Amino acid sequence: MSKRFVIVGLGLIGGSMALALKGFEDFEIVGVDVSEPTLRFAREHGVADAVTNRAREAVEGADVVMLALHPQGILDFLEEHRDSFKAGCLVTDVCGVKSAVMEGAKCLPPQVDFIGCHPMAGTEFSGVEHAFAEMFQGSHLILTPREDSTEEHLELLERLARHIGCQDVVRTTPGQHDAILAYTSQMMHIIAVSVCDDPSLFACKGYEGSSFRGCTRVAALDVRLWTQLFSLNAPALVGCLDTLIGNLSAYREAIASGDREALAGKLAWSADRKRKMDLPGPDLLG
Amino acid sequence: MSKRFVIVGLGLIGGSMALALKGFEDFEIVGVDVSEPTLRFAREHGVADAVTNRAREAVEGADVVMLALHPQGILDFLEEHRDSFKAGCLVTDVCGVKSAVMEGAKCLPPQVDFIGCHPMAGTEFSGVEHAFAEMFQGSHLILTPREDSTEEHLELLERLARHIGCQDVVRTTPGQHDAILAYTSQMMHIIAVSVCDDPSLFACKGYEGSSFRGCTRVAALDVRLWTQLFSLNAPALVGCLDTLIGNLSAYREAIASGDREALAGKLAWSADRKRKMDLPGPDLLG
Repeated sequence: MSKRFVIVGLGLIGGSMALALKGFEDFEIVGVDVSEPTLRFAREHGVADAVTNRAREAVEGADVVMLALHPQGILDFLEEHRDSFKAGCLVTDVCGVKSAVMEGAKCLPPQVDFIGCHPMAGTEFSGVEHAFAEMFQGSHLILTPREDSTEEHLELLERLARHIGCQDVVRTTPGQHDAILAYTSQMMHIIAVSVCDDPSLFACKGYEGSSFRGCTRVAALDVRLWTQLFSLNAPALVGCLDTLIGNLSAYREAIASGDREALAGKLAWSADRKRKMDLPGPDLLG
Repeated sequence: MSKRFVIVGLGLIGGSMALALKGFEDFEIVGVDVSEPTLRFAREHGVADAVTNRAREAVEGADVVMLALHPQGILDFLEEHRDSFKAGCLVTDVCGVKSAVMEGAKCLPPQVDFIGCHPMAGTEFSGVEHAFAEMFQGSHLILTPREDSTEEHLELLERLARHIGCQDVVRTTPGQHDAILAYTSQMMHIIAVSVCDDPSLFACKGYEGSSFRGCTRVAALDVRLWTQLFSLNAPALVGCLDTLIGNLSAYREAIASGDREALAGKLAWSADRKRKMDLPGPDLLG
């Protein structure tokens, strides 16, 4: 008899997860959403094995429930459905802040496990119509287990990561996750929108190359989602922005001073740090 | 009888230009470089129809000379070879600052035309071994003609742009070019190195997604080249950085204030600007 894997929220990430999970062990993939157009699209395109707007029924029969909602939506869903999960069920999520979500999951009864999950993938679009099965290929999957999370559940999520094509699985604490993500993800979005706030934005069409496209791509963001992510991680993000503003100001001074040798030395130091990172960057040309 | 197109400097851009120019009308493509390893690589890989380290001889017989050197190298080459170009020759370049180069080109005799040229393409690597023919596909080619530049020469460069696959050709003034490029290109590089100056850089491996890779890709820059580009365009770049620091600080305040509604309004404004730009961004996933 097959087990049931319920994905709540068939947006960009939930829809892509459903597509990527096709054929995962003996799970039946069930998608839940409140939007009729989303359910119709998902049904017509075979995004999941079954789709429904009846969250409670779906959750009651689930072995795994993955909440692919905005952070506040996750907190609200946990609160509303805390007593619907069956004993032994694994509840997880996909969102970009972990402390607030892990805190919210404390409302679950003791026989329901919760492991925070954050697949580091996405695009600047939203909605099931932009979902695609390859989204997670080569990305990192971050897990923040509770102290009493079972090894069986952690291993299940590691097999899931392999199935959807993740590059690796990283286990960490919610606090560590949020501190690092403020830097690697949230700050990148604040940079992108800040660059687009420049009065010259529209004059620059025809003069932009790959560095501009790469830096500003994510500026066309999902406002509700990112307002929540920034707000739920405000202290860490503000700290990162202060560091960035300091580093930018130091470069500004080095350039304004006219001391080319000092500028070259500073650039060599930064460029060397980047090379030591040795990230497999996207091949961005043109 | 074929005409001669000389590319001085077979680095990443000069080498890619030579490869992309294969079969361009009836031009013989001649590559000039001072480095023996570069010339050997270019010869063995057929980067140009002919390669040589004898710049003066190559230039003397040239109908078009494209200087693919660092900015200071271009200024030095013009000064040294000003009397070697034949009458009617078109001299051009590929570099990312135009006022300084157009100023330097004033040393040329009146019968030699100079049109500033900037193909907006590149990667974070350097050297002929990273050159590839497709580099300019879909990029913008910017031209800054002199007042007395001939239409014949401008049309030649427009045909060149089509041959190497550029998306379009934009004609502008050196001052306008440098003002916009400070924003669209130079500032992107300062952002990238400033992000990499954060003490958390090395701790973030395993936690980076496409936004981080896209923003920091160009941090591993060619230090000599970018020191020159930043220094030769310092006032415009410092102005852009001041605007950016102001915009980042405004976001920092909006996040620190805890006023979610104000933050959402601000994000909606910026995201809407980005959508209106409607840039064909690189498809960056994972």
